[in-house]
Amino acid sequence: MRMTRKEFLEFTGRAMMGAVVAPDFFHFLEAPRGFIEDILESPRVKKIHKYIEDHQQEHIAKIQRDLRQPSVSSWNMGIQEMAELMRESFKELGCKEAELVQTDGYPGVWAWYDAGAPKTISTYMMYDTQPFDEKEWSSPPLAANRVKMDPFGEVIIARGAINSKGPNRLFLNACEAIIACEGKLPLNIMFTCDGEEEQGSPHFHQVLAPYISRLKTCRAHLSAGPSQNRDGFVNMYLGNKGIAYVELECHGRYWGRGPQRMPIHSSRKAILDSPVWRLVKALSTMVDETGNKILIEGYYDAIVPPTEEEVMLVNTLIARFGERALASERENVKVWMNEWSAAEAIWHLVFDTTLNINGIWAGYTGPGSATILPEKAAVKLDSRLVPNQVIDEQIALIRRHLDKHGFSDIKMTKLGGGDEWSRTSVRAPVVQAVLSVYKHYGIEPAIWPRSAGSSPQAQYTRPPLNLPACSGGLGHGGRAHAVDEYLVIEGNDRVAGLVKAEQSIVDILFAYAYWPE
Amino acid sequence: MRMTRKEFLEFTGRAMMGAVVAPDFFHFLEAPRGFIEDILESPRVKKIHKYIEDHQQEHIAKIQRDLRQPSVSSWNMGIQEMAELMRESFKELGCKEAELVQTDGYPGVWAWYDAGAPKTISTYMMYDTQPFDEKEWSSPPLAANRVKMDPFGEVIIARGAINSKGPNRLFLNACEAIIACEGKLPLNIMFTCDGEEEQGSPHFHQVLAPYISRLKTCRAHLSAGPSQNRDGFVNMYLGNKGIAYVELECHGRYWGRGPQRMPIHSSRKAILDSPVWRLVKALSTMVDETGNKILIEGYYDAIVPPTEEEVMLVNTLIARFGERALASERENVKVWMNEWSAAEAIWHLVFDTTLNINGIWAGYTGPGSATILPEKAAVKLDSRLVPNQVIDEQIALIRRHLDKHGFSDIKMTKLGGGDEWSRTSVRAPVVQAVLSVYKHYGIEPAIWPRSAGSSPQAQYTRPPLNLPACSGGLGHGGRAHAVDEYLVIEGNDRVAGLVKAEQSIVDILFAYAYWPE
Repeated sequence: MRMTRKEFLEFTGRAMMGAVVAPDFFHFLEAPRGFIEDILESPRVKKIHKYIEDHQQEHIAKIQRDLRQPSVSSWNMGIQEMAELMRESFKELGCKEAELVQTDGYPGVWAWYDAGAPKTISTYMMYDTQPFDEKEWSSPPLAANRVKMDPFGEVIIARGAINSKGPNRLFLNACEAIIACEGKLPLNIMFTCDGEEEQGSPHFHQVLAPYISRLKTCRAHLSAGPSQNRDGFVNMYLGNKGIAYVELECHGRYWGRGPQRMPIHSSRKAILDSPVWRLVKALSTMVDETGNKILIEGYYDAIVPPTEEEVMLVNTLIARFGERALASERENVKVWMNEWSAAEAIWHLVFDTTLNINGIWAGYTGPGSATILPEKAAVKLDSRLVPNQVIDEQIALIRRHLDKHGFSDIKMTKLGGGDEWSRTSVRAPVVQAVLSVYKHYGIEPAIWPRSAGSSPQAQYTRPPLNLPACSGGLGHGGRAHAVDEYLVIEGNDRVAGLVKAEQSIVDILFAYAYWPE
Repeated sequence: MRMTRKEFLEFTGRAMMGAVVAPDFFHFLEAPRGFIEDILESPRVKKIHKYIEDHQQEHIAKIQRDLRQPSVSSWNMGIQEMAELMRESFKELGCKEAELVQTDGYPGVWAWYDAGAPKTISTYMMYDTQPFDEKEWSSPPLAANRVKMDPFGEVIIARGAINSKGPNRLFLNACEAIIACEGKLPLNIMFTCDGEEEQGSPHFHQVLAPYISRLKTCRAHLSAGPSQNRDGFVNMYLGNKGIAYVELECHGRYWGRGPQRMPIHSSRKAILDSPVWRLVKALSTMVDETGNKILIEGYYDAIVPPTEEEVMLVNTLIARFGERALASERENVKVWMNEWSAAEAIWHLVFDTTLNINGIWAGYTGPGSATILPEKAAVKLDSRLVPNQVIDEQIALIRRHLDKHGFSDIKMTKLGGGDEWSRTSVRAPVVQAVLSVYKHYGIEPAIWPRSAGSSPQAQYTRPPLNLPACSGGLGHGGRAHAVDEYLVIEGNDRVAGLVKAEQSIVDILFAYAYWPE
């Protein structure tokens, strides 16, 4: 079922006005009475919690060790070393198998922890990070210093602190604590790790390929880690958007006009065309005056209406939390697009596609003035995709648009490209298990049908694996992709510190290990 | 007298079709018969020529010394040191006065050579250079290596080789040769030097200010140096265009929309405005689809028709040289704007204004992909100005255009800003003297009413000094503002090498020193 942009926007309005609002998120929970209390209050789990308390300093040191190993995939910086560090970590944990997986890009890592348990889960870890501009950071991005940050008390500042090397280590710390107390984990885990997530995971299918038949034996795909925002609020994402990423280059040589080989003196603009103006004009055709409506023909056509479950989830989220569901953005935002209310913003964040300029460059960009007519200009565009948009089809629409508007000389290169959209039903047992842990904590999570960002999750949730996927846990970190990225160590009365964060991972693993299904 | 853009273009067409074409450029020459031969064939001048031949290696070494001293004004790299090197060079020459002149920017240099001669000239030297990206050069831009370059034989490759530290030194070498042979120069020279030419000479008026009453005693403003293009062809410019240079910044904070303080995760484009798209849309309103017609209201209004002398000069240039007048651009150009003929291109190069993007930047511009919605975007624009456009008035039109189109939040900063357009009549005695030297060589120069580039020449040719200005000489260099900038040392049968280039400077100084006026 397809609908036009107009129908989509009308549907959004109707759905928001007419939805039956659930009393709370546990409306969706179908747990056996007393089941979760029996597990989480057991002496076994309490002993593990105590162990984590007693080993906090060692656990922090391991986080710092991982964060001090650079792993910037854009720069090919430290990637191999980080992959090896991951493999060693899995060996230390007691994994039966732990090996690098070669791909056409950076290596992945595969590890198998065999507890001899009846249930096996799959889990994903990305070990690469975004790049950084060190001089803008208050604490060096590779120092992983422990510093005070209001209102969280102590935090670690580092690139990758929250996205996602910090959380990876919390998970491994929690697993080590369980094994130290019990000798083994309550379930088997297949770890698959990606060194190109920030590139859109272009080769991650090659990491999974050799293990597909074994991954099919998993009951679910589960990631446990810090999921609180700065107010202690928990967002739970049952999927993610896809991402299409392209670079466009306008070059005098491809165009046959303007400077052909190198920049020329800017006075020559009087008689020469400019590839920079050309790129500006080409880009300008892609969006309306606001920069928000995409004018690429057919760009919205593949979008289908939200499912009934999605509508119910989002309306519940809006009714229960409103603006609070967006709180983590607020330090950097004054007003949403189109002066949208929080409700409208949430709808678009979940259900709408985007066209964003990540970077643009041409000519002289340093201090002062240089007078050149550049021979080329380039831009990096990304687009977040919702059901049923498909990466390669959306990219083809961009190409067709350029060609149709006379810009067939502008070169388009696909970057990244593995991350399609993903979704899991709230009724999946793994989601129910995580929800039951939150209920036990007295925390009501905001359940999003999908995050606005992207991940390779579709490779687990869509064919051939078709696993339900869920993530959850306490703890907080922020400024992913930005300056002064951090992970909370100390915490406050709203946000869990390191100890509670690791304890919540233990709880989730136990809850799902014994969940009846 | 003002005219519309349409009238300007129509005038251009009529003037080109209807002009009476002079038989050659010496049509404009009114020299006394036999006068120039008597000077240039004199034993005095021949002795100096011989001296230059004998001291070629020392002269080359001095050029290399100057080029190895960096002086990049955009980067504040080596500026003070270069100013001091200039001062020392003037002292070595025997200047009575040689001193740094402090300004609100980088220092200028003033020097006075008092030959006790009846005639005094003013000359200008810029001692700063454009920046460079060393890794793109075939020979390091500060090494000033002597290398073979077809078809010129030996050249020096360096930033500043032709623009303009190489030519400065050729002039000083020629002066030193004269003084070595004769004890003094045939005329007095007031040197005024600029360390911010590549910034648009924003403080050069402060260099001249203390010396205005003395500069008024000059009869002319004369620059002698390499003026041949790669085919040996000579372009003679009787003025230059002005330049307006601004930087525009679109920032979420000024706008009150989009990310306010730092980049945000690109998935947030679903609910946030983009300052980058905004800058693209704002720029797009400034030019038409071709990127060539300026749509800023009133931008062409101040342009007045060419004078009768200018029309005659340009039509002569077109008739005599056509495409050859543009030959130096050809290695980097396939086709002129609008498929113009050489004749049309020359007209627009001389008489038309421009709006050029020198650089544009936002967000992530490195290899691979990063997913951010940048909080800001910026662009560097320059515009070349013709009579009677005025820098500050054209900049005000850009500001008004932005405001009128709803972009009043886009911040505009003026960069550089001292260089208005300049012109001198072909009938000025200093021009006649230089023309007579070319005629003696059997070289017919192409006389341009103005160059398409800019210089602070207006500060000499317009009030309060009102000096006629001219430049000329043999020799060649190229790739100003670009990679592998060079100055020819060896030369071939068309292009003069270092020796002939310095000899031509001697000839020009003698020709004008004794020119009757």
